[in-house]
Formats: sequence, structure tokens, C-alpha cells
Amino acid sequence: MKFTGLCAFPLTPLQPAAAALSHSGFAVDEAAFAALVERLADAGVDSIGALGSTGSYAYLSRAERARVAELAVQSAGTVPVVIGVSALSTREVLANVDDAQRAGASAVLLAPMSYQRLTEEEVFGLYERVAAELSVPVVVYDNPATTGFTFTAGLHGRIAELPGMGSIKIPPVPTSPDAASAAVAHYREHIPANVTLGVSGDGSAAAGLIAGCDAWYSVLAGVLPRECLDLTRAAQSGDHATAAAISSRFAPFWDLFAAHGSLRVVAAVAEELGLTGPDALPHPVRGLDGVGRRAVAAALDTAGVSRG
Amino acid sequence: MKFTGLCAFPLTPLQPAAAALSHSGFAVDEAAFAALVERLADAGVDSIGALGSTGSYAYLSRAERARVAELAVQSAGTVPVVIGVSALSTREVLANVDDAQRAGASAVLLAPMSYQRLTEEEVFGLYERVAAELSVPVVVYDNPATTGFTFTAGLHGRIAELPGMGSIKIPPVPTSPDAASAAVAHYREHIPANVTLGVSGDGSAAAGLIAGCDAWYSVLAGVLPRECLDLTRAAQSGDHATAAAISSRFAPFWDLFAAHGSLRVVAAVAEELGLTGPDALPHPVRGLDGVGRRAVAAALDTAGVSRG
Repeated sequence: MKFTGLCAFPLTPLQPAAAALSHSGFAVDEAAFAALVERLADAGVDSIGALGSTGSYAYLSRAERARVAELAVQSAGTVPVVIGVSALSTREVLANVDDAQRAGASAVLLAPMSYQRLTEEEVFGLYERVAAELSVPVVVYDNPATTGFTFTAGLHGRIAELPGMGSIKIPPVPTSPDAASAAVAHYREHIPANVTLGVSGDGSAAAGLIAGCDAWYSVLAGVLPRECLDLTRAAQSGDHATAAAISSRFAPFWDLFAAHGSLRVVAAVAEELGLTGPDALPHPVRGLDGVGRRAVAAALDTAGVSRG
Repeated sequence: MKFTGLCAFPLTPLQPAAAALSHSGFAVDEAAFAALVERLADAGVDSIGALGSTGSYAYLSRAERARVAELAVQSAGTVPVVIGVSALSTREVLANVDDAQRAGASAVLLAPMSYQRLTEEEVFGLYERVAAELSVPVVVYDNPATTGFTFTAGLHGRIAELPGMGSIKIPPVPTSPDAASAAVAHYREHIPANVTLGVSGDGSAAAGLIAGCDAWYSVLAGVLPRECLDLTRAAQSGDHATAAAISSRFAPFWDLFAAHGSLRVVAAVAEELGLTGPDALPHPVRGLDGVGRRAVAAALDTAGVSRG
């Protein structure tokens, strides 16, 4: 697969488990998940990232993750699927890699998830070990807010030289054009041309794509794929004004993401659009309260998104 | 149980798994773990904390954790055992709570482990849910460095009012006496007297105990229980000079903990003392290199710890 354009990350919607399984607490809503993935494929996204942070991978069992990977590939049609394989132990990462490859993943997404703070050598060792097991490419997932690990550009460069590295999902870039270009150029000094750079932090997507990022790894595209495709295609065609204008329409979302975390906000969007049931997040994580939900509905109105 | 005095946290030593289980990577070294716990009980510690951060709980499966909990209680004799039950999902925490209670835990230790950053209300909801399931007390585990969540004293106060809360394992206090006393007093303004305060961050243990903490939740005591008991008993008897002097003898350890993380350092101590085999940590976490190991051996010499 090519690691360019729009990669949309669907939620993995949950639902309360059957009462008999008293401590299970939740189960994957498989029908809702499959429908979310089909909707992304129908919209024409370039790739689909299942079991990313937005896909609540960190809260699911190995068996649930294997099942979600299967469903994602089955529901995506011809759209390539990237499967998140991160876990706290290398042992569990390798098990997830097996499951993802068996499910037909086109690539895997791997973050240096940490409990004990990891050293650079430990993180390099993780990617080296996983690279040795893989027959599909790796997307390096750099997300200090959730993993507790901060990459240097130098470490990215070392990892990017390993066999099978396809792309790096970088943290948000600054939104001012000069600073965004400088940030992307700094990565490029260390990273070979065969490894693409994908921006995350949806509020900085337009800035990142305009500054030369090859891809957008998008949370919002998991629920609003058409709107995010419009932004991506405008940026790719050099129509920076349109890309920036679309991003501005979604400014209330970027504020809500900053206030509540993107997962809680897109879960509220999915429920507002009728794509999932209520309480679709893994406890202890909870959905937005009434005030937050009303702000999400208002943000959808501001962006001109029609419902139902 | 009373949550006072010295609570020693043993490692959960690992060993490479049988080659046939190609992706298992590691298994718990049950014999070494049981011997570590027996050694702590023989030394006369006040309680034993199994499956803390030092016990690598975050890297083990539910079945491994249940087995370690059983072994800990069996090996501790009459010493009460606190079992770590933390996990990313409430679902998994509740399963671990069941297992810990079945194993005979005298209390459970619960941290608000997070992947998505948690809100105060979400963390309160976690403790509220767990408190409703428990027949043994809870030690609230406040460790921002590993969990990514920072408690306010106000949140501690709300949680401490829940039924069954026994103690709070607080982060390191400042080592200057006045600042340590102010830190402990700030907690005490919010926390009822029936909930004890235990200091962590071994380098601040003497300061914390002298400032009025009721307990020391100790990593170093997992490998050097007699020395840590000497410090604890001195502080408890009001002999602050002796407590501070013992802490000073271990100053090279506090520096090594800051540089490498306490887990990697105590794993090297355990190996140096012949208590565990090599490579006892869960990958991607790795043991110290040769330079680090030599520094650990020198720190043992400085502290006057004899080997073998």
C-alpha cells in the first residue's frame, strides 16, 4: 500500500456486555463497527486505520482485537487497512502482529506504549524485534500524549532505516505555515524518502498537508470522511485556500478535541449521527456530558454537516 | 490490616519462555518470586505489596497475575499482602479484584492507569465502582510518572471518603524537612484520619516518615528489606538522625533510580545478590548495561551491603 492521502480511523464502538458476564462490562458492537468501516470505504478514503487510539485498542483483549482486525479487512473492500498492534509488552505486540497479518492487514501501526518510561534503545529494540517478524509494512505511531514516550527526530531516522518501515504518524505540527514547514523539514532531514510522513492532530492537518506531509492520519475522518476527503484533496491539488477554509469550518471541533480529547468528541459525533449506540467508550473513559454533547451538535451545525 | 510501617514491593522476576512458545517471550519465574516474598516475610516487613509497578503488573496476563497473587499470599506467611489490581479498563480491574480476593489478599492497590488521559470524574468513577465490589480495603496508588494521571488533593479527599479506602501511596515528597511537612499537611487537610498516608520514592522515604507519613511503600525494600526496616524503625521511634543517616548511605541508589528508573536498578540488585536470573524484566524494558551494573555494585558497597 501507499501511505499517502487520507487514512481514516474508525471508533471501535462498544456496548454493555450481557448481564450474565457480570465483569465483562462491555463487548464490541460488531455490527456498528462493520458499518462504520463500510461507510469509510464507500466515501473513498485512501486507507483505514483500525484499532488506533480512536479504536480503543488499549482497552480490548487480544481476542477482541483479532476479531476487530478481521471485521475491518472484511468490511473495507479494496481499501487497504492498517491495524494497530501496540501493547505494553513486546510479547503482546508480537501476538497482535500475528493476528493482524492473519486477518489480512495491509500494514500495522505500532506505538511505543509504555508503563515504565522507555529509553531510546528500548524503543529501537521494540521496532527492530517487530520488523523481524513482519511481512507487511509498519507505520510508526508517535503520540506522546497517550504513550508517554517522546521520539527525537534522530530516533525516527534510525527506526526508519529498519526493513519494512512505511510511514510515520507524527504528532500535530504548528498551524502557522512557516513553523509547520520547519517541523516537516526537520523530520525530513532524518527520514529517508521512502518513508512517508503523516500528520495527526486533526486541527493541524491542513497545515501539515500544505507543509508537505504525505498523509493525514485522521480521527475526524472516522465519522466525517467526506468532509475530511474534501480537505485532503484540496491540499493535495495545491488549493491551499480551500484546505484552510474547510479546516476553519471545523474549528469548533479542534477546540472540543483540545478540551475533551478527540475520542470522547468523535464518540459523541458518532452517536449524534446515529452510527453507534450510547456508552460506546471503554470505562473508566466516559462520554461527554450534556453540555459537551450540545457543543458537539453546535459544532456539526457550524460545519454544515447534515444529519440523518 | 494496618497500613503503617514498611510495605515492601518485590519484583516479579521473569525468565525467557520455552522456545516452543515462540511468541510468549517470557514467563514468571515462580520459584524466584516465592523466595523473594519469603525473604521479605522473614525480614519482618509490615506488609508486602505484590504486583506493584516494581512487580511489573502492567506487562502480565490476567492468569499470570492471579497466579502471582496466590504465590504471594502463600509465601508471605502471616504478613499481610497487598495485591496490585490496576489495568487500563475498569472491566479488567474488576477481574483482577476478583482474583486478588480469591487469592487471599489483605488489600488491593489501585492506580488510575491511563491510555486516554482521564478526567477527575472518570478516576473518581473508577474507585467508586471498585469500592462497590470489594470486601478488603483499597490502597490508592498515586504515581503520575507511570499512570499519566495527576491527582489533586481534593480528588484524594473525595476518594478517601468512599467505603473501604485504607491508605494512599503518595508520590515522593520534597527532602527538605519543612517542605516535606508542608506536603504531608496539605494531604491531611483533605484526607480523613482513618486513611493512612504512605510515602513512595525511596529517596524521600526518610523525609516522608519524619514529616508524618504513616507508611513507606518501598521498592528498595523488595531487595534490601533489613536495611529499609532499620530506616523505618528509626523514623517511627523518633530517631530522625539515624533514619536520615541510613538514607544517606543509600544516596547512590537514589541517584541511580533517578537516572534509570527504580525497576531497572532493583532488578540489577536482585541479580547481583543472586536472587533472580538475568533478563528478569518484561521487554521492551531492558536491564542495565555493564556501566549501570557496575554502578549498582558500587552503590551496594557504599551502603555496606554484603553479598552471598
